[in-house]
Formats: sequence, C-alpha cells, structure tokens
Amino acid sequence: MSKFGLYGKLLVKEDDRDKLVSILLEAAESMKNLEECQIYLISTSDEEPNAVFVYEVWDNEDAHKASLSLESTQLLIERAKPILTGMENINTLKISGGKGISL
Amino acid sequence: MSKFGLYGKLLVKEDDRDKLVSILLEAAESMKNLEECQIYLISTSDEEPNAVFVYEVWDNEDAHKASLSLESTQLLIERAKPILTGMENINTLKISGGKGISL
Repeated sequence: MSKFGLYGKLLVKEDDRDKLVSILLEAAESMKNLEECQIYLISTSDEEPNAVFVYEVWDNEDAHKASLSLESTQLLIERAKPILTGMENINTLKISGGKGISL
Repeated sequence: MSKFGLYGKLLVKEDDRDKLVSILLEAAESMKNLEECQIYLISTSDEEPNAVFVYEVWDNEDAHKASLSLESTQLLIERAKPILTGMENINTLKISGGKGISL
C-alpha cells in the first residue's frame, strides 16, 4: 500500500526566502500533531535562491487535503501569501517505501 | 545546521519500472544500517510512468558520497544499470528542518 507524496516549490524574492522558510517550519511544527503526516520537510537549494522546496508524505491524499482546511494551515498560508511570487507542484508521488517512514 | 538532501529520478522503460523500484527498496533496506542516512524514500508517479523518484536526507554530503562506495551499493548499482535509460538530479537540497528527521 503506497503512501501519498508531494514534492514542490514555493517561489519568493531572494530577500524573502528565509522568512518563507521560517513560516514553513512553523507549518511543519503544526504537522507534528497530525499522525497522517509522516514527513514534512523544508529545504532550500543553492541552485535556486528564490525557491523553498517542500517534500511531504501523507497516509493518503484525503489526509493531505483535510490538512489544508485546518485553521493553523490557513493562518500560515495567509502569512506566506504576501511574499509568494509563485508555486509549482514538481511531482505528485506514490511512495513505494524506503527508510524514514512506516508503510 | 542543515542536512544534505537529494531529489532525483532514475529512468527506465515502463515495463522495467517495478523491477527498479524493488532494487531501490533493497538499497533503502541497506541504508537502514547507516545512521547518517535519515531518509531514503522510493516513489513513482502517474505523471511519469518510466521514472522512479528517490528522496534522500543525509547528515552531510560526505556521508552520502561514502555510501556510494559501499559494496552493497555497488552491487545494487550493477543490477540496476542494465535497465536504466537515464537519470536526473532534480535538486541538491539543504534541509532546513521539519517533520520526519532530527536536525
């Protein structure tokens, strides 16, 4: 049984990148109470200084969708919106398994 | 202190995808003994039926490089080579944090 995964990036002006990272780290903190969310990792890359990358693993797609309507998530989305210049879903994934999650 | 991350894909003919997934799951199994490897997750995507995606998180880049010369890794690379049609490093990442790893 595969898990539901997402890999995407949020785009900002370079000067706003660290601010977005801290907002997303708060989002990750709020995910720590959600058992259906196994992975929610925030990254940057020297290759793209105006992007913040998010890799997520959820028990299923519905659990991910439900999380978007949580008040904590909505508040963070509102805080991020003013500095976002774009976003891209790079891949929607079926997680076959590996190290770091329980299937 | 960020961790070292990689997100990439390995390309095969569609018929060989599941075979590659199982080889990479074996690789993930062997990573379970490596403390410096926190995440090694194998995924597919309906969007790209000839690709297998790997998301990795390591304590640092040297730990990742060292793993490539392990005998277990070399054996798996040899087994995968005949069916690989290509590979792409999508992003080299600095993992800022989040849910699923310990910084």
